[in-house]
Amino acid sequence: MSDEQRGFTVWFTGLSGAGKSTIAEMLFHELKARDLKTEILDGDVVRQNLSKGLGFSKEDRDTNILRIGFVANLLTRNGVAAICCPISPYKETRDQCREMIGNFVEVYVHATLEELAEHRDPKGLYKKAMAGEIKNFTGVDDPYEVPEHPELIVDTMVESPEESLAKVLKRLAELGHIDDAEARIQGDRVHSGLTDLRLTETGHVAKEV
Amino acid sequence: MSDEQRGFTVWFTGLSGAGKSTIAEMLFHELKARDLKTEILDGDVVRQNLSKGLGFSKEDRDTNILRIGFVANLLTRNGVAAICCPISPYKETRDQCREMIGNFVEVYVHATLEELAEHRDPKGLYKKAMAGEIKNFTGVDDPYEVPEHPELIVDTMVESPEESLAKVLKRLAELGHIDDAEARIQGDRVHSGLTDLRLTETGHVAKEV
Repeated sequence: MSDEQRGFTVWFTGLSGAGKSTIAEMLFHELKARDLKTEILDGDVVRQNLSKGLGFSKEDRDTNILRIGFVANLLTRNGVAAICCPISPYKETRDQCREMIGNFVEVYVHATLEELAEHRDPKGLYKKAMAGEIKNFTGVDDPYEVPEHPELIVDTMVESPEESLAKVLKRLAELGHIDDAEARIQGDRVHSGLTDLRLTETGHVAKEV
Repeated sequence: MSDEQRGFTVWFTGLSGAGKSTIAEMLFHELKARDLKTEILDGDVVRQNLSKGLGFSKEDRDTNILRIGFVANLLTRNGVAAICCPISPYKETRDQCREMIGNFVEVYVHATLEELAEHRDPKGLYKKAMAGEIKNFTGVDDPYEVPEHPELIVDTMVESPEESLAKVLKRLAELGHIDDAEARIQGDRVHSGLTDLRLTETGHVAKEV
């Protein structure tokens, strides 16, 4: 079994709208292009299949994150690259996932609240949260604990998605999870169906950020 | 990737105490002995990690089963043998899992209510359910829908666990999921930690049934 793929988890954490799903989706296709087995655990898919009924209290958020971590661990220890992109605001819970999984690559996806509220709020969620119409919104009236020692920080304030992806691939190569860091996919990508990214009319991933 | 393991799910269904976990645990070690990647999704592990907070209404049971099916599907499509052993009383929900997963081997583990209540009720659960002290107990005041076309029926009323296991291995070989059906493990087995089976003082699986 020594030639088999070694599993790992790439865990994107950051505020809603920071770009986690965008980079996750791009990474998914890069790993697929390398013939690696890979899965994304994100958004609607997780909410529908693992976490229906959970709310946004700290306890419910922790349950959701640990559930994603449990599944990511099952995949990782069976040789799959699991890509997770929940907000995961609490450091302690992220660290529990890290400890459980082992081959854990934490990527902090940074963007400021101001940027998100002013320029990346297509559904008006930040505005509603800031007006008090939505409660427990991470970054507004619910905490987000910035990772202290992530394997990588990407800053979508100043980087294009392609630049952030390049940094992720470079870090994964440094850590021995992939052989080469060169991006293989150019142009539009067909949607994995595993993230909440919007689609163009042709079924391709809409350009975000 | 053509030499890689093809994933499949073995889905044990039947009343509480019928022997699902016992046979699942034995199968786990047989698959491991064949160098196959395998996971068990059962009992406490599922309740703790996937389904905390769910009760025993039809809706909650269905949510639990579909959640197990979702995870089994992730494993199966990545080349893992997923062994699931929830009671899974409803035919429609089992069929949804079958449809989702594809490589689905349904094993009905049969034992009569009388046998379970009289001879396999160490915690007295059947007695309490029959006395009305526990509600929504499958087989007593909650339905169990017997599979109409399972891939296999094992009858723990008349078979030893070793005999039931032999039938499971034979069926998996017929279906092309394993190469040979001969049992490889003799005697006591170290507990996988993935089922609710009782342990002997030496950490080995207690003989059941």
